[in-house]
Amino acid sequence: MLDDHSRKELDTSNLHDALEGLPGSYAGPRKILTQPYGAVGYEEGALALRLTSFIEKTVVAQGTQFLLGNVHDPEGEDLVNIAEASGAQVQRVGVSPSLRDLDYLVPTQPLSLYTYTQYLAHATGNSEEAEKADAALRLLADRCTFQIPTEQNPAKQLAWSLWTRTPLLLASRSYAPLIGAWQQLLGRIGKSMSVPLEHEPLLTLSGGFEARHESGDERVALILGEPDAEMQLAREILETRIDEIIPVLPPENLSDYARNLYLWYFGAWVSYYLALTYNQDPKDTKVAELLNADFKPRVDEDDSLN
Amino acid sequence: MLDDHSRKELDTSNLHDALEGLPGSYAGPRKILTQPYGAVGYEEGALALRLTSFIEKTVVAQGTQFLLGNVHDPEGEDLVNIAEASGAQVQRVGVSPSLRDLDYLVPTQPLSLYTYTQYLAHATGNSEEAEKADAALRLLADRCTFQIPTEQNPAKQLAWSLWTRTPLLLASRSYAPLIGAWQQLLGRIGKSMSVPLEHEPLLTLSGGFEARHESGDERVALILGEPDAEMQLAREILETRIDEIIPVLPPENLSDYARNLYLWYFGAWVSYYLALTYNQDPKDTKVAELLNADFKPRVDEDDSLN
Repeated sequence: MLDDHSRKELDTSNLHDALEGLPGSYAGPRKILTQPYGAVGYEEGALALRLTSFIEKTVVAQGTQFLLGNVHDPEGEDLVNIAEASGAQVQRVGVSPSLRDLDYLVPTQPLSLYTYTQYLAHATGNSEEAEKADAALRLLADRCTFQIPTEQNPAKQLAWSLWTRTPLLLASRSYAPLIGAWQQLLGRIGKSMSVPLEHEPLLTLSGGFEARHESGDERVALILGEPDAEMQLAREILETRIDEIIPVLPPENLSDYARNLYLWYFGAWVSYYLALTYNQDPKDTKVAELLNADFKPRVDEDDSLN
Repeated sequence: MLDDHSRKELDTSNLHDALEGLPGSYAGPRKILTQPYGAVGYEEGALALRLTSFIEKTVVAQGTQFLLGNVHDPEGEDLVNIAEASGAQVQRVGVSPSLRDLDYLVPTQPLSLYTYTQYLAHATGNSEEAEKADAALRLLADRCTFQIPTEQNPAKQLAWSLWTRTPLLLASRSYAPLIGAWQQLLGRIGKSMSVPLEHEPLLTLSGGFEARHESGDERVALILGEPDAEMQLAREILETRIDEIIPVLPPENLSDYARNLYLWYFGAWVSYYLALTYNQDPKDTKVAELLNADFKPRVDEDDSLN
């Protein structure tokens, strides 16, 4: 069914081509900014900091202070004002009703994470990392594009495995930030709720299935990353309690950044096809558009800048 | 039904009395240790660091380095070895097969969080905070104990609201660590899975209910803490999509620590009654006991120390 071209007509915003064209599409600033670096992020800018380790500090008193995503978050504004007063150069990167408040506009859209993380890679002198990540993403795009039939397409296959089931999301400790990333992708693009188990999952799993063995949805567990000792125990607990356990692995020999971006990108492809299996348009819902309306640049000002 | 004493017979480990007697029960070290402080925590010791802000740093090169929970976690052992080599005094607090490896034994059990956080409060010179938290917990215990009938008992009432429904867990930003705490309590004690929405919940909620409007369980959302702007938007999205939204508020004028410990403790009471509504024993399952078996002090050594 996912190989039938009529299915792709559900995708009215052509998110498919945005996904396919994502690797290598970064067209933002590439200048290396002054060290040391501090960064805070809100809404679409928050995940970028959890999936990368280019920047360790939250706030710096010199060098470059990044504010990502919603640059008018009250907490974020306070923090960067402190950094600026202390002597740091502030970079406001994300969305704002006024373009004058931004050093670089990253429009809200389901794949903006890629722009934020590639921006950070370049700005912190890691352009080689950015290129390696693009190369890994490009290989995956070739395998996940619509014309690749389900039998050879890992994203279509995983989407079918999730269909009509509730996904539990688990990860080896070093992959933990991807749990929240997949929850957001499955919700925003895949139009589906999932159950993240991010903190000490064994404590929750030790009892969580006792009360309602048979009720509710069927369940499938995704385990992100090579299993560590904790995930091996999680597998043992889950084996008798849920329908299926599916490992989700990145290729070997990727850097931490390329690996995280690869698994995020795979989650986006899976979510795309999951929406299609449910006869849903994978584009942002009206709710998402309403939430983002506050961030849209005002038209008159927009004109004046063009 | 929860007011019927036969129901309490399900509770074979008498977790009820452990809960009721918890406020003021801390009987561990009270000595203030040398600053600065660093702390890492694993398994039962991890949540204590998310719910408190007595210690800001992860690793210190002088002063006192805490290792909480599973003191043989490989990552934790590496980190404290670095701290120790640099000159910090290490405090190993938690569980180990050998008591000789511990400065303070905190046996694994569903309420051990209280012991870890009160220990940290005393060790970092915040005994006043520990006493204030105890006072807040004591008032709550008086309202949640089994003899208080459902009409006056907030924990029994909330347990009924969660019964046969899937709880979504949300929180204002400053309460976010309580989301994972409640997930663990509802799983380990309440024998129920819940759906945490910890990171940028609006992104997930914007699409997450589209694909499967009517399928699966009924849903109820708990919003922990006084609602901030983000939670007010979350309420608006949820109102048309789930059965009920229930705010869970701490008393006013509590310190951050007392407030967090209060909401954790309330979650434990609710989970206790939730297990009873499902005819479950709220004590640790066999799975939890198996997971903890590795941490049990060996009997022979235990004897030799008595």
